[in-house]
Amino acid sequence: MAIPKDARITLSPEEIPKKWYNIAADLPNLKPMIHPVTKEPVKPADFEAIFCKPIIEQELSKERYIDIPEEVRDNLMALNRPSPLQRAYRLEKYLKTPAKIFFKREDMSPLGSHKGNTALAQAYYNAESGIHTLTTETGAGQWGTALAMVSNLFDIKATVFMVKGSYDAKPLRKTIIHTYGAEIYSSPSQHTEFGKKILREHPDTSGSLGIAISEACEMAAKDPGTCYALGSVMNHVMLHQTVIGEEVLKQFAQAEIEPDYMIACVGGGSNFAGFTFPFLREKMHGKFQNSEVIAVEPKAAPSLTTGEYRYDYGDTAGMTPLMYMYTLGSNFIPSAIHAGGLRYHGMSPLVSAAFDQHKITAVSYDQPATFDAGILFARTEGIIPAPESCHALKCAIDKALECKAKNEAKTIVFNLSGHGLLDLAGYEQALDGTLPSSAVGDHY
Amino acid sequence: MAIPKDARITLSPEEIPKKWYNIAADLPNLKPMIHPVTKEPVKPADFEAIFCKPIIEQELSKERYIDIPEEVRDNLMALNRPSPLQRAYRLEKYLKTPAKIFFKREDMSPLGSHKGNTALAQAYYNAESGIHTLTTETGAGQWGTALAMVSNLFDIKATVFMVKGSYDAKPLRKTIIHTYGAEIYSSPSQHTEFGKKILREHPDTSGSLGIAISEACEMAAKDPGTCYALGSVMNHVMLHQTVIGEEVLKQFAQAEIEPDYMIACVGGGSNFAGFTFPFLREKMHGKFQNSEVIAVEPKAAPSLTTGEYRYDYGDTAGMTPLMYMYTLGSNFIPSAIHAGGLRYHGMSPLVSAAFDQHKITAVSYDQPATFDAGILFARTEGIIPAPESCHALKCAIDKALECKAKNEAKTIVFNLSGHGLLDLAGYEQALDGTLPSSAVGDHY
Repeated sequence: MAIPKDARITLSPEEIPKKWYNIAADLPNLKPMIHPVTKEPVKPADFEAIFCKPIIEQELSKERYIDIPEEVRDNLMALNRPSPLQRAYRLEKYLKTPAKIFFKREDMSPLGSHKGNTALAQAYYNAESGIHTLTTETGAGQWGTALAMVSNLFDIKATVFMVKGSYDAKPLRKTIIHTYGAEIYSSPSQHTEFGKKILREHPDTSGSLGIAISEACEMAAKDPGTCYALGSVMNHVMLHQTVIGEEVLKQFAQAEIEPDYMIACVGGGSNFAGFTFPFLREKMHGKFQNSEVIAVEPKAAPSLTTGEYRYDYGDTAGMTPLMYMYTLGSNFIPSAIHAGGLRYHGMSPLVSAAFDQHKITAVSYDQPATFDAGILFARTEGIIPAPESCHALKCAIDKALECKAKNEAKTIVFNLSGHGLLDLAGYEQALDGTLPSSAVGDHY
Repeated sequence: MAIPKDARITLSPEEIPKKWYNIAADLPNLKPMIHPVTKEPVKPADFEAIFCKPIIEQELSKERYIDIPEEVRDNLMALNRPSPLQRAYRLEKYLKTPAKIFFKREDMSPLGSHKGNTALAQAYYNAESGIHTLTTETGAGQWGTALAMVSNLFDIKATVFMVKGSYDAKPLRKTIIHTYGAEIYSSPSQHTEFGKKILREHPDTSGSLGIAISEACEMAAKDPGTCYALGSVMNHVMLHQTVIGEEVLKQFAQAEIEPDYMIACVGGGSNFAGFTFPFLREKMHGKFQNSEVIAVEPKAAPSLTTGEYRYDYGDTAGMTPLMYMYTLGSNFIPSAIHAGGLRYHGMSPLVSAAFDQHKITAVSYDQPATFDAGILFARTEGIIPAPESCHALKCAIDKALECKAKNEAKTIVFNLSGHGLLDLAGYEQALDGTLPSSAVGDHY
C-alpha cells in the first residue's frame, strides 16, 4: 500500500508555535498560592530569592497568550520540534479495532522526553536575567537530564540534586548529566546545610524528592546569581509545555482529525497540560464537543482519582507555598514504581482545577498492565515507551478495545511523553514475570 | 534571531526514496566472491542455504537502480524516515569556524542507529519468500536490536547470537531484544553443534563475532524456513542503506548545499556506503567535483588505512565466501574499543573498490579523541553520539578547525549514524580520564 496521508503528520520548523497558551486566563475561580509562613496569598517578591522575574511574572500571569522568544523557538528545534503526530496502524491492526489511534512523538527529543520544552524556556529567562547557575532536584532523572542539556544552550551552569536511591540505582543518568557538563550530587549531600543536617540525623537515608528540593532551593536562595528550576506542577511549567498541544492542533487541522479521546499520563501534570490545554481552550470555545480528555495516573499515586482537593505543600518539609490542588498529602510516600515521573503526592493546580470543573476525567492503572501495553507497543510500533507514557498508552488501548466491542470507529490520540531506553529495568521485570503490582503508598 | 532556513532540512514522508542505488553498476573491475571450498566464483545457488532468492539477486545485481517495495517504504517511516539534515550552528560557534557543519540524523530511528534500513528490507524479502525465522549475530547489539524490531513488522521470528563478552557486559541490549520479542543467546551457545563444540574445547571463552556468525549460519542452513541476515559488509546491505544518501541529495537541493567534505565512519561500511554512494554517483557524473568523501576508521581496526587489498574470508573460521576487500586478516583481533560497530577486520568490497579507485579517502582516529568530540557535541548540539559516530564527528571537527586556520568557509557534512544512550560506558571513562588509547589489535 502507498504511505497513507495520516501515517505521520509532520510540521516544518517554521511551524513551531509562536505563543504559549496560559489556561489560567480561561479557568474561573483559581485559588492563589498561600505563603507558608504568613498564610497570606503569595506576592511576586516572595519568589525572588529563588526565581527570576520573567518566570515569576509567568507563574502569576492571567494573560491568555505569552509570546515565545525567537531564541527559545530557535532552540526548540534542537529538541526536534515540531514533533510528528503519528498513526499507530500496526497497533490498530493487532487489536483488530475499528478505532484510529494517533500518538504525539515527545520521545523524539534527544533528551528522550518532553521535559526539555520548559527546561529550555527557564534556562533562557534565567540567562537573560543575568543568572549564572540553575539548581534543581531530580528523581527518575529525566528532568535533571533536560536541565543539564539546555543550560549549555544559554551558557549557564546547572547543579542537579538527585535523590540518593535513584543516584545509586541509575548510574546512566549520572553519566548523561556529566556528559552534558552539569554537576550532580547524591541528595542528601554535604553541599548544603539542610543536606548535612539530614546526613547527621539519618546517615543511612536513601533521600527523597522533598529533601532534594530543599537542597536545590537552599543553594538558590544563598546566591543572588543562582536560581531554582522546577520541572512540573507550577503554572509557568504548564505554560511552556503547551507547544506540544499547539502543534497537535495544527496537525489535527492538517490531517482533518477530530479526536474522541485525548489521553496523557499525569504525575505533576506537565506533559498532560502541554498536550491537552490548547485542545481544552478550543473545547471551551465550542469545538471538539464530543471529545473526552483523560488524565491517566498510576494506582501507586492516584491524586486525582482518590486525593482531596485542598491546600497542601509542594514538598514534604512544608517549605513551599501552599497550593490548592488534588493531593494525597504532602507526607505521602508512593511505592517504588518504575514510572518515577508519576510518583508525586499532588497535582498541578491548573490540572486540578480543570478536573474539579469537569473539563477532564481521570483513571488509574496498575503497573504490570502498563508495561504489558509498553511491550505490545514495542512489538507493533517499534518504539519502547517510557514507563510513564505506558500509562497513557494503556488507556488508549483500552479505549480502542471498547471501540472494537461496540464496533465504533472513534479517534484516539495520546501523548507519548518519552522513550524508555534509559528505564529498561521495568521491562526486564515485566518480561521475567517479576514485576510487582503497585500498591498505593504509605504516609509518614 | 529567526530560525534560519538551513537549520533543519526536513522532507515529507512522501519523499522517502523510491529506488535504492546500486553502486556496483558504476564501479569498474569488481572482483567476484569466491567459494571457500571450490575456489570458483560463487553462483546464486551457493547462497540458497542461508539467503532467500530476492536477497541473492540483489547481492549479485549490476542493475543501477532497484525499486523499493511500497511496503518497505511504508515501514521505513516507522524508523522515522525521512530523517532531518541539521546544521550544527552551536558547534560552529563554539569552534569559531567560518565553515558550515551539517549532520544527517540517523540517530532519530527508534532503534537508535541506521541499522534498521537494511534490517527492514531483509525482513520484508524473507517474509515474502515464506521464511519464518531470521538468524543473525550481533556484537555491540545495534544490529541485533534492529533485526529484532523489524521482524515484528513482517510477522517473522528473529534469533540473535550475541557475543558472550557483550552479552554479559550489555544487559540492556538483551532486555531491548527481549522486549521486541526476539530470542537472544549468548554465543557460543548450546543451541548449535558449532557452539557446543567451542564450549567443550574452550569452556571459558568470551566468544567472537566469527563464532556467532557460524552459529547463526548453522541454524539457518539446517532449516529451509530459516534464513540468515547480515548487518553490513555485503552488497545488498550497502544497497539498502542508500536511502540515507538519496535523502541527503534531496536535502542538498532543497537548501542549496554544495558540500566540500562528506564524512562517515566505517566498520563493515554500511552507514558510510548509505550516506555517500548516491553522492559518489553524482560525483562520477560530473557534479560536486571539488568535494572529498572521507571514510573514518578507528586506530584499533584500520582496514582501509593500513590493511591489504586482497581476497579474504568474512569470518574467522573461513566458512564464508572469499571477498576482495581491504583486510587486516580474518584472524585479526581488534582491541576492545567502545565503538563495537567499527571492530571488523575487513571492509565492504564496494567501499574497498571505491577506495582503491581513489573515489574516497580514509583517515583513522584514536578512541580518546573521538569521545572528546562526542562530549563537545553533546554540550553544543544536545545529542550524545554513538561511539562509532564520534569518529565521523571528530573528522568533521578537524576539518572545521582547518577551515578556521585557513579562513575558508567550506561546507562539511557528516553522518550521525546513531545515538549513544545505550553505550554510555565509554563516556563515563572519558569523563573520568580513564579511557585507554586504542592500540591496534593482535592476530591469532
